[in-house]
Amino acid sequence: MSSHEEIVLKPIGVVRTPSVGNQVKDKTRISQIVIRDDLAAALDGIDDFSHLFVLFWLHEISNEKQKTLKVHPRGRKDLPLLGVFATRTMLRPNPIGLTLVELVKAEGNVLKVRGLDAFDGTPVLDVKPFDSWDTAKDTRVPGWWTKLESEKAKSR
Amino acid sequence: MSSHEEIVLKPIGVVRTPSVGNQVKDKTRISQIVIRDDLAAALDGIDDFSHLFVLFWLHEISNEKQKTLKVHPRGRKDLPLLGVFATRTMLRPNPIGLTLVELVKAEGNVLKVRGLDAFDGTPVLDVKPFDSWDTAKDTRVPGWWTKLESEKAKSR
Repeated sequence: MSSHEEIVLKPIGVVRTPSVGNQVKDKTRISQIVIRDDLAAALDGIDDFSHLFVLFWLHEISNEKQKTLKVHPRGRKDLPLLGVFATRTMLRPNPIGLTLVELVKAEGNVLKVRGLDAFDGTPVLDVKPFDSWDTAKDTRVPGWWTKLESEKAKSR
Repeated sequence: MSSHEEIVLKPIGVVRTPSVGNQVKDKTRISQIVIRDDLAAALDGIDDFSHLFVLFWLHEISNEKQKTLKVHPRGRKDLPLLGVFATRTMLRPNPIGLTLVELVKAEGNVLKVRGLDAFDGTPVLDVKPFDSWDTAKDTRVPGWWTKLESEKAKSR
């Protein structure tokens, strides 16, 4: 397979939330992930995990915006101009969102999850159980990241 | 957007490794991710992070296998039959792999990473820096998962 070939995906479900705008960033908030009826059986046993990764498609990012190569983190001009792969910006060649959420309840084809920063109607690509291989000790992050986090903590 | 609409992705690069077969499961091993030349600028600043998530396309999973809804973890009949979303099996509706790796070195358009369990030639969809929002405390996993991990530990 050449690295220029196209890959076609089909959503496995959709995000449902009454939250709008900046409300979706509130990590204490509960959202629903409604999985396609024909895939409901693929959820069997998921509720034995407390946390999941949700992969979703940032469908509001236009083709033009996917060509962005550099950004200031959160649009802040006082922070360095960085490659999009060095940030979690939505402006990326393949705008796939990745968020770790708490699984509150699984019922039929609906997952109730806490901490999903995605808008109502967002197509979901995959859900994966979180386990100890998904984390690392002694990690290092840049100064700009620590600065943003400490500002966020102060504003709470 | 309807949840049945198709989504088209284009790889951002490709995995390069001399390892074959079960060798790729060795988490101490170093692989290269060769990013497309036209996206090299999107890596600027990535080396300030010690760890990355790599999203890749499991291109050897056929359309037929993507229809699998239930599996025994690692094909083990002594373990429960589970929905694919309750496992990390490659047999999933959208076969996207997600692995946390250590970034050893970033040079030009090449990332040297440790711990990527992907074969040579695997198309890469995204790389994202790992930060403290990507992990959780007090997580719960099922008994079958703990059993598999303890067997693995004993065989080392």
